[in-house]
Amino acid sequence: MGKARLEAFSDGVFAIAITLLVLTIPTPSDYRHLSDALLDHWPAYATYVVSFAVIGIMWVNHHTIVGHFAGLDRNAVYLNLALLATIVFVPYPTGVFGEALQRGQGERTAAVFYSLVMLVNALAWAALWVYGSSGRRLLAPEFPEEQRRTATALFTLGAFVYAATVVVGFVNAYACLAVHAALAVYYALDPVARWVTRFTG
Amino acid sequence: MGKARLEAFSDGVFAIAITLLVLTIPTPSDYRHLSDALLDHWPAYATYVVSFAVIGIMWVNHHTIVGHFAGLDRNAVYLNLALLATIVFVPYPTGVFGEALQRGQGERTAAVFYSLVMLVNALAWAALWVYGSSGRRLLAPEFPEEQRRTATALFTLGAFVYAATVVVGFVNAYACLAVHAALAVYYALDPVARWVTRFTG
Amino acid sequence: MGKARLEAFSDGVFAIAITLLVLTIPTPSDYRHLSDALLDHWPAYATYVVSFAVIGIMWVNHHTIVGHFAGLDRNAVYLNLALLATIVFVPYPTGVFGEALQRGQGERTAAVFYSLVMLVNALAWAALWVYGSSGRRLLAPEFPEEQRRTATALFTLGAFVYAATVVVGFVNAYACLAVHAALAVYYALDPVARWVTRFTG
Amino acid sequence: MGKARLEAFSDGVFAIAITLLVLTIPTPSDYRHLSDALLDHWPAYATYVVSFAVIGIMWVNHHTIVGHFAGLDRNAVYLNLALLATIVFVPYPTGVFGEALQRGQGERTAAVFYSLVMLVNALAWAALWVYGSSGRRLLAPEFPEEQRRTATALFTLGAFVYAATVVVGFVNAYACLAVHAALAVYYALDPVARWVTRFTG
Repeated sequence: MGKARLEAFSDGVFAIAITLLVLTIPTPSDYRHLSDALLDHWPAYATYVVSFAVIGIMWVNHHTIVGHFAGLDRNAVYLNLALLATIVFVPYPTGVFGEALQRGQGERTAAVFYSLVMLVNALAWAALWVYGSSGRRLLAPEFPEEQRRTATALFTLGAFVYAATVVVGFVNAYACLAVHAALAVYYALDPVARWVTRFTG
Repeated sequence: MGKARLEAFSDGVFAIAITLLVLTIPTPSDYRHLSDALLDHWPAYATYVVSFAVIGIMWVNHHTIVGHFAGLDRNAVYLNLALLATIVFVPYPTGVFGEALQRGQGERTAAVFYSLVMLVNALAWAALWVYGSSGRRLLAPEFPEEQRRTATALFTLGAFVYAATVVVGFVNAYACLAVHAALAVYYALDPVARWVTRFTG
Repeated sequence: MGKARLEAFSDGVFAIAITLLVLTIPTPSDYRHLSDALLDHWPAYATYVVSFAVIGIMWVNHHTIVGHFAGLDRNAVYLNLALLATIVFVPYPTGVFGEALQRGQGERTAAVFYSLVMLVNALAWAALWVYGSSGRRLLAPEFPEEQRRTATALFTLGAFVYAATVVVGFVNAYACLAVHAALAVYYALDPVARWVTRFTG
Repeated sequence: MGKARLEAFSDGVFAIAITLLVLTIPTPSDYRHLSDALLDHWPAYATYVVSFAVIGIMWVNHHTIVGHFAGLDRNAVYLNLALLATIVFVPYPTGVFGEALQRGQGERTAAVFYSLVMLVNALAWAALWVYGSSGRRLLAPEFPEEQRRTATALFTLGAFVYAATVVVGFVNAYACLAVHAALAVYYALDPVARWVTRFTG
């Protein structure tokens, strides 16, 4: 399978997963006091925005990573499928998180659950990168060797950071959501992402 | 990221958001008097049609605007993601609007909510345009300078017009829906859109 | 907007609408007698299959028709959006139809509703064709003139046929579903579709 | 219709069907004991993972098979649509399977139902292959004749294997789910798939 095909399919999955997020927002039941009901849903809007940013930025970074690969083999295709499985799953913990915050019940459990899904996702990213880059198995020849090591270190670090968000979830659900939002911003803006962009053009 | 990639992803998101609108129509509960139940749902059909037109026409205009850009940078990609987030959200206020009109409860609140979402959407459009066009940052060289100023003025005006629909929503929900329908027609037909089409071919 | 773009977007909408059909099948409530519950859902499976065939064959025919156009103008783009709006809507009457048949309540109303949606859809097809072909406005030069008249006659006839299914729906819901299935087969196999394929290659 | 078109549409359908799987996971109702509720959902996670793998691997194999065809005719397009209809349907038995396992009611019925859907799917694959390969009707000239016979034998065998999973479902639901997971792994890894990849490049 060519890269273009895999990327087109992955793009489709990203696009659908990001769009299904809107279904996680519960419809109001009380239309007599609709403005109150809509305002009460603010946690669902907040988790929608955070997960939208998370998936959207992952979509950008997916291009970058696949762009560094000269080609793909079957294992990479399946690792990519595993990665997509964790992304497609995101609307579920997003809905649970928003609902728990709104009800004021099970918030920390929901935060831990959301963080665990993100941790598994971070591990799937790391697995795809490590598989493709170790021994420069799939890496494009022009990809600089010293950046390969940096990137591997950062993917490993990412997994630890998401493990840390699990701990934050045990302590405070709102702090946990804020950390996920901050991480999304970090992955959108950090210098690593910047060099990554530079090389894929 | 190339323009083609961003446009394909955006097209996917537009296509899914426009299709999810059908899920906003509530299924009938009373099948003994099904024709009454189906007729009672007319507000859901009306909001479906209006939002379908809104998203469909935005899809057309998205092509036009991106077509005027010679290329994209990271900020434009993220502004585009923010814009998509407001479009993906549209099915939610659409469903609330239709349901409120059908119940005869909370209609004006729903109209205001719908208009607020459209206002945020108009701001996201304006942000993308202003970012890409100011100082001709991303504009294609052949894009005429005087039309740049016209377009910026129109995007600014658009935000004010959608702010006005919020006010209309406070007054009358049906009038507000009619105004949104009229605005969709305007954006489909107006002369500005026409020059825009002329230049992108 | 180029043809490729419009077709890619339309394909996406077709693909999503056809996939959302699965959401029209109600989940069982009684898991103690699950086999009975699943068998009771047979009308939902039947309407799923018919609507899947209908949308799938429309997808094939959409290519054919757009393939006969040398290019597109703004009006054609909007007529195409209107056509898509009727196709995206299909899962709704499909779900209502299946549910009505299963409950044994409102079957004929549901059949009439389904047929009305198909009638509006047939009119949208006819509108796109008539707009694009009258005076050969958008037709490719190699498209034979005598087949233009034949096609216009057949699109007109199609609208009348779907109007007739509305009448059938008033008489018998099962017969109406069977007629829609038969029409799908006809549109898949008829000689007209065949020449159409011949010319688009 | 060209192969590229059919593949793009099929890819879209695969992407959407695989993403809709997340909607099969029931949202928790008890947020006071959310961790228990989320843990109780483990069968839904298990069926999600199995069906995600099943559809994902089918997507890979779809490319392979269509890649062996030099072109497509109308019948192949319709056989492909029939195949897609069985894939789009997968989220439904997936949800039923997960729910039955969680409730501890109707598990074997759900397993049989899931297996029946997979059997119909296997028959649809076989039909597409047999149609395209018999008499080398659509096969690319470079496709080796002896592998044609091997592949036909394997597709036939596949249908029998899925028929066997129906029997397993009558005996034990968990064993049936495990067999489906094992079959997904088999189709991802077996030597046949390997040569298939070799020839499509």
